Amino acid sequence: MFIEKLLREIKQKKSPCVVGLDPTLEMMPDKLKRKFLVKGDEKEIAQMFWQFNKEIIDYTAELTPCIKVQIAFYERFSLPGLEVFYKTLDYGKEKGLMTIADVKRGDIGSTAKAYAQGFLKNPSIDSITVNPYFGSDGLLPFVEETKGGEKGLFILVKTSNPSSKELQDLITEDGQFFYEKVADLVSSFEGDFSEFSHIGSVVGGTHKEHLKRLRKKLKGFILVPGYGAQGGKAEDIKYAFNTDGFGALVCSSRGITEYYKKIGEENYGLAAQISLKNMIADINREIEKGVE
Amino acid sequence: MFIEKLLREIKQKKSPCVVGLDPTLEMMPDKLKRKFLVKGDEKEIAQMFWQFNKEIIDYTAELTPCIKVQIAFYERFSLPGLEVFYKTLDYGKEKGLMTIADVKRGDIGSTAKAYAQGFLKNPSIDSITVNPYFGSDGLLPFVEETKGGEKGLFILVKTSNPSSKELQDLITEDGQFFYEKVADLVSSFEGDFSEFSHIGSVVGGTHKEHLKRLRKKLKGFILVPGYGAQGGKAEDIKYAFNTDGFGALVCSSRGITEYYKKIGEENYGLAAQISLKNMIADINREIEKGVE
Repeated sequence: MFIEKLLREIKQKKSPCVVGLDPTLEMMPDKLKRKFLVKGDEKEIAQMFWQFNKEIIDYTAELTPCIKVQIAFYERFSLPGLEVFYKTLDYGKEKGLMTIADVKRGDIGSTAKAYAQGFLKNPSIDSITVNPYFGSDGLLPFVEETKGGEKGLFILVKTSNPSSKELQDLITEDGQFFYEKVADLVSSFEGDFSEFSHIGSVVGGTHKEHLKRLRKKLKGFILVPGYGAQGGKAEDIKYAFNTDGFGALVCSSRGITEYYKKIGEENYGLAAQISLKNMIADINREIEKGVE
Repeated sequence: MFIEKLLREIKQKKSPCVVGLDPTLEMMPDKLKRKFLVKGDEKEIAQMFWQFNKEIIDYTAELTPCIKVQIAFYERFSLPGLEVFYKTLDYGKEKGLMTIADVKRGDIGSTAKAYAQGFLKNPSIDSITVNPYFGSDGLLPFVEETKGGEKGLFILVKTSNPSSKELQDLITEDGQFFYEKVADLVSSFEGDFSEFSHIGSVVGGTHKEHLKRLRKKLKGFILVPGYGAQGGKAEDIKYAFNTDGFGALVCSSRGITEYYKKIGEENYGLAAQISLKNMIADINREIEKGVE
């Protein structure tokens, strides 16, 4: 079951930190570019991404419960890119990691069903992110495909980008934020679980107050993007956790995978490992301090 | 340019009707199942979908300005499926059709940029659908990739599913529907065009009153799903058009591609053509009657 596995991994590795694998051309080390790029076509780029991801996973697998793979960066290079998306998830599984396919899909029921089956029937995918804009009949096919807890969902509630306030923070006529209405919708799918629901949410790490409100309201795990590169700080992000220190996954992508540039380290895998260790220490320190 | 091409095609074919290619196993005619399915694996299914799509396009290309290809139904069968998604768009282009990749992507800026480039740099894709939930910095990379009108966007405003009311029809503190706030956001990207903006919207054909409001507000084309199978009627959908009879694209998928089942016709391509002709007549009749 999704939650049981996740809690076991987090406890064993003493890490609620998720490695995001979002490769771009700009992210690639020169030595990989020299090795892979001759014509510079999609196939070569995809092979380079695969080599990069593989090494990042090898260096970080002992320290993370979970990888998050953002499909956009693979779709960018069409079929050869998408092949690496699936291969990366397979490899993560092979290394004993849990996986989040960050796909943010959302559509009307019949279409949502196709998305849900496409991703959640894949044995290498433990959970996916979804977009709530269509309302409950667009979310239900995803919920159904989690089969009562075998797999997990993370539904977008409050995103980490600056413009998220434009729509998500609109005040509704009864004085609530729009994103709270979305959280109500998430709640309605949570079911009855003694510990955590497998129906979780996404709440950006750049919003301390929102995290506080939502942690109280929601019974699933909160996936928190935005640590590091996007400006989310551990002292704010800790509010995504319950007082016992569980209930959230904190994700960093560029902060980990591009760390080699910051420290002038040729071994990008090792640099990622160092960065992830720093991140874990930072987050755990704040969790231990406790929340007000 | 996107709008010029689209208007030319609509006028020449006297058809604002879009064929949606959303293949499912249930949709497939028995003769194709017998021909293609031996092991029943993803590759065979994908080949069957390709054969099906190709024949539908051959029979309908003279009657539609545009095909809409919903990626979920291809992602469902991973890489072999996605190959057919791209091949279908290529084939549509080859037959002189315009294309909408119905992908409904949406994410934070850097990720949105990867999606935008992945789809809109593809010469076989004229336009895509996008999800507005992230706000303007999530939409901007898509707008930028349209290059001031070479390509088109359709931003979700009001969707055709019953539950769309749960979030999209929430009333904000100034008395507006939430979806109207989304429409304001769409407006902010429209730019200054004498006829139509290439930044369009998606508004379900099941909402006459919403269509009326939004047609007045928006300067782009409105893509209207929901005709037929989902219950949208021509007498309601006509409100998506301006008084001169232009400004909307009406889409039907199952209503066209599954019509062969309804009339007991083995030739599913011919059946699709008949259904599309009926749809065009139905829509044009209502447009000619004019709006109140």
